[in-house]
Amino acid sequence: MLFPNITTPSVGLMGFGAFGRLIARHLRPHCHLIAFDPALPADAAAGGIIAADPAEIAACDIVILAVPVSALSQAIATLRPHLRAGAIVVDVGSVKIGPAMTMLAELPEHVGIVGTHPLFGPQSGRSGIAGLKIAICPIRGRSAWRIAAFLRRVLGLKVIMTTPEAHDREAAMAQGLTHLIAKILVAMEPLPRRMTTASFDLLMRATEMVRHDSPAVFLAIEQANPHARPVRDRFFALAEEMRAHLDRDAASSFDQRDAGALSWKERVG
Amino acid sequence: MLFPNITTPSVGLMGFGAFGRLIARHLRPHCHLIAFDPALPADAAAGGIIAADPAEIAACDIVILAVPVSALSQAIATLRPHLRAGAIVVDVGSVKIGPAMTMLAELPEHVGIVGTHPLFGPQSGRSGIAGLKIAICPIRGRSAWRIAAFLRRVLGLKVIMTTPEAHDREAAMAQGLTHLIAKILVAMEPLPRRMTTASFDLLMRATEMVRHDSPAVFLAIEQANPHARPVRDRFFALAEEMRAHLDRDAASSFDQRDAGALSWKERVG
Repeated sequence: MLFPNITTPSVGLMGFGAFGRLIARHLRPHCHLIAFDPALPADAAAGGIIAADPAEIAACDIVILAVPVSALSQAIATLRPHLRAGAIVVDVGSVKIGPAMTMLAELPEHVGIVGTHPLFGPQSGRSGIAGLKIAICPIRGRSAWRIAAFLRRVLGLKVIMTTPEAHDREAAMAQGLTHLIAKILVAMEPLPRRMTTASFDLLMRATEMVRHDSPAVFLAIEQANPHARPVRDRFFALAEEMRAHLDRDAASSFDQRDAGALSWKERVG
Repeated sequence: MLFPNITTPSVGLMGFGAFGRLIARHLRPHCHLIAFDPALPADAAAGGIIAADPAEIAACDIVILAVPVSALSQAIATLRPHLRAGAIVVDVGSVKIGPAMTMLAELPEHVGIVGTHPLFGPQSGRSGIAGLKIAICPIRGRSAWRIAAFLRRVLGLKVIMTTPEAHDREAAMAQGLTHLIAKILVAMEPLPRRMTTASFDLLMRATEMVRHDSPAVFLAIEQANPHARPVRDRFFALAEEMRAHLDRDAASSFDQRDAGALSWKERVG
């Protein structure tokens, strides 16, 4: 399916954290999958999927880099000597401009490169990933479209074909704002659980989805995305403006301020 | 049901805005309901429910004050001369301490008083209100429990019996934070609709639910609730702290900062 001439491609997963495990669960039925993570002992002898040597990962048809964005360069250095001609290297980071540049600069010419950002995590993908979104950026070679077709048809994902620049611009708002707000809300705990509105319940569900993401994910979103800072600065400036507005208004009496009440009074009084 | 000796009580609705209409839709099958709103012409002659004179509203078994919190006093002054002994006056405001004090001070001794806060609005109650929450504060007399039983058994609401003080303390966080965040997000539009995560989609749904609430609702939540300001100040302080933290970290290199990446490197490198 993924390779015209290979029925069941081999997939090497570099990194077996929470997201690596989610990838493994969904790809295993469709490929020969092995994973490497320095934190985990090899279990291949016992029929498991954890390889003893990262070179085994590098020798696969498809190599997925499921490491923190900031560790990408080091992971590539480890794999590079063993990558085979025609292999496809895929990253899954939350930002795309930086990783795309790193992969283009540091991966050998003879491998294809695809940037991906699954717009879901272990929390939102807990009860299945069909219908969830994934951004795909073709970086080098033509394999991005084959991968997109596989993700769409076999895994049922909604595929968004994009560029690293367009991705980072939109993700700076979607992810940047969600993680920022969630961090602030978690710092305000305990938050009410009983006297809550439907809208507050949604806000809490959003917070629950991202609060267990690793600190590395938060830093990648807020700092490795060049568009994140202007978005965040705008959020903070608007918060400051709102504070000034509410504090200023508090100086006058509540009745005077409330246009709705005034018109009500004018009508009744 | 609501009155032991009256099968179908009369309910007078003072105010027929978006929330008044929602109340009318759900109460009409269970009572004789009339409404008054100075913005609307009487249509009683045409078989409608809009009364010509607020005195008709005041003469009902149950009088519901569905006016902005800041217009409560004026609405009470209009109705007071016509309220009958044994009637129950109910408010539906987003805050409870202020309205409870106003009602206790300004309503005649011969009426019962119940403070309520339906923790939903025209948006969240659009496709039915069964299962949604309502806070009930007994203020004067014993009718709060009869009303609570009706709301629970007949309308299927989740009833939270509370006091104005406890209500405002919790609502300051639940409503105060939701409305504050929603205001800021609306000011940041256009926001992404395509490259979005599940958590961001929840944040947008929360925002959509409250963005059309009247300015009077926002001001009541942020300024008529005495607990709202400390909550808001804490939110703004944490936002400021976060900004300083992210800006400070941005000064050093990304790789140096990322503990997750460092430990990965230590393990692989």
